[in-house]
Amino acid sequence: MNPQPPTAQGEFDLIRRHFQRRAHATAPGVALGIGDDCALLTPEPGHELAISTDMLVEGRHFLPGADAAALGHKSLAVNLSDLAAMGARPLGFTLALALPAAIEAWLAGFASGLFALADAHACPLVGGDTTRGPLNICITVFGQLAPGRALRRSAAQPGDDIYLSGRTGEARLALALLQGEDWALQACGNDALAQHPELRLRLDRPTPRLALGQALAGTAHAAIDVSDGLAGDLGHILNASGVGAGIDLPALPLAPALAALPPERREQCLLHGGDDYELVFTAPPQHRNVIEALAKASATVVTRIGHISKEPGLRAMHASGASQSIEARGFDHFG
Amino acid sequence: MNPQPPTAQGEFDLIRRHFQRRAHATAPGVALGIGDDCALLTPEPGHELAISTDMLVEGRHFLPGADAAALGHKSLAVNLSDLAAMGARPLGFTLALALPAAIEAWLAGFASGLFALADAHACPLVGGDTTRGPLNICITVFGQLAPGRALRRSAAQPGDDIYLSGRTGEARLALALLQGEDWALQACGNDALAQHPELRLRLDRPTPRLALGQALAGTAHAAIDVSDGLAGDLGHILNASGVGAGIDLPALPLAPALAALPPERREQCLLHGGDDYELVFTAPPQHRNVIEALAKASATVVTRIGHISKEPGLRAMHASGASQSIEARGFDHFG
Repeated sequence: MNPQPPTAQGEFDLIRRHFQRRAHATAPGVALGIGDDCALLTPEPGHELAISTDMLVEGRHFLPGADAAALGHKSLAVNLSDLAAMGARPLGFTLALALPAAIEAWLAGFASGLFALADAHACPLVGGDTTRGPLNICITVFGQLAPGRALRRSAAQPGDDIYLSGRTGEARLALALLQGEDWALQACGNDALAQHPELRLRLDRPTPRLALGQALAGTAHAAIDVSDGLAGDLGHILNASGVGAGIDLPALPLAPALAALPPERREQCLLHGGDDYELVFTAPPQHRNVIEALAKASATVVTRIGHISKEPGLRAMHASGASQSIEARGFDHFG
Repeated sequence: MNPQPPTAQGEFDLIRRHFQRRAHATAPGVALGIGDDCALLTPEPGHELAISTDMLVEGRHFLPGADAAALGHKSLAVNLSDLAAMGARPLGFTLALALPAAIEAWLAGFASGLFALADAHACPLVGGDTTRGPLNICITVFGQLAPGRALRRSAAQPGDDIYLSGRTGEARLALALLQGEDWALQACGNDALAQHPELRLRLDRPTPRLALGQALAGTAHAAIDVSDGLAGDLGHILNASGVGAGIDLPALPLAPALAALPPERREQCLLHGGDDYELVFTAPPQHRNVIEALAKASATVVTRIGHISKEPGLRAMHASGASQSIEARGFDHFG
């Protein structure tokens, strides 16, 4: 449906040039890729299919004028992160894209970031849709899992250790510096982004922890990826599992750039920052050696940061021994 | 990532109230629905998984202020139509939704239209994402198929008959009347939408031809759903199959409301209208009786409208016997 009469073949050419030709590579599990009414996937017999969808909107999930290649990377990364949190192996993805205009350079950049990450994880584009509209990127990703091995949010047990991959807070600090928030500039200085180039990378190029997630499937109990802040996302595990947790604050891995922040702001970035795309997961204490070995095998730094308790609620334990209740809030897009 | 600090639990409550609670029903093929990092589907062993994604943008795919329930219906219908065109049986869908504001009445209306159609086709919501942004609805739909039975665009053969389900052109005429286009008002009168209530239904509540598509899988050759106009979508079959076609213009089923149009406008609506969500498909002449029986069994009117030829190109054959080349153009979102 459109008020304007149809004209040239622009849309089809555009898709072909930047997306369709990249989707021709046959991949295991893909019987038919882009170019028909549907894609056809053939997961390994007896496997479950894991599915996740994420929509990224300009001004909400990324700043206007964001680098197109970084955006291509991030759009897929946040979806792959959901597969990682489930322990699934990627099979492919679809891309729906609304663009205010078909700008060649933007499309080339977006495609380069997108396909570099897709290729790195053998996750082919299998279908899509392109239309004109306010910039909006919606990716749906598919993965496969052996039955019963999914890392569900509801599987945490009292007594479990809580682990975190990588570290949290850098993406939030990068955003604060980019937006010129006073507290960040005062603590870190005006040239903090230049001095700590890793901050921008953490915000723009998150690393989906796919190898770790697949390694943990079948061994860890519950897992979730940290997109809305450590406390909020851990809170989803607690709610789904009907348990509580204590986080050992001094154990949280601290990025160098966060050291300059006053303690309150630091804690806020670590616990409520968001956009980290790390995995937080639980496993019984008798598996500590196994978890360490799996983390090493998947080349991912993993830190034990707390424990699951029977008592509900989320508590932060300070170095002093004092314990304090934390709001297990997540990021609210309608707040 | 968001410039504003997180606040209340509004987003989560909103999703729960209108979508999540509707997704709890266990369904065959769904091991885990909404509420975790991924949904888990279990297609029947040995089956292929069909996937399609469509993004609907305000002002492009629907008029600003469109009825929320109709929009909920249509957003899913256009996706189910892609499954129908492949011959697949629905398994479930994901919904990603960007909304300028969380308005209770709008959400209730949208959900009612969406779930009425989903329930009618046993196609449960299995996952989703909600965010603030310019109104954008992205649905990804999943279906299953016995291997080798998919109705591919590339399978048309010279000598095949061409069939159309239902009829084309009404949605385009409805849009023209809604927008007050002169040619439509002059031919049909200012009260045409009141006199022909079926026009609005054809635009707002398209019927995905799922029963017909599944019945045809394994018997028909090529199929596609008519979203961008009969000529343009048939053109996709011709390109993918390396063939041409002739459309028998007098054979095209004519809706009563289109009878008032001057011949040129009528032909334009029939061939290039778009938003019809009918199936156009091909089958060998020796299967005419079978096709007729399958159409009857799936309670769908089907009309033979032309034939596939070796010579490339798309031709319209008039009642006079004259033949004329038609541009096999589709709707171009960047035209």
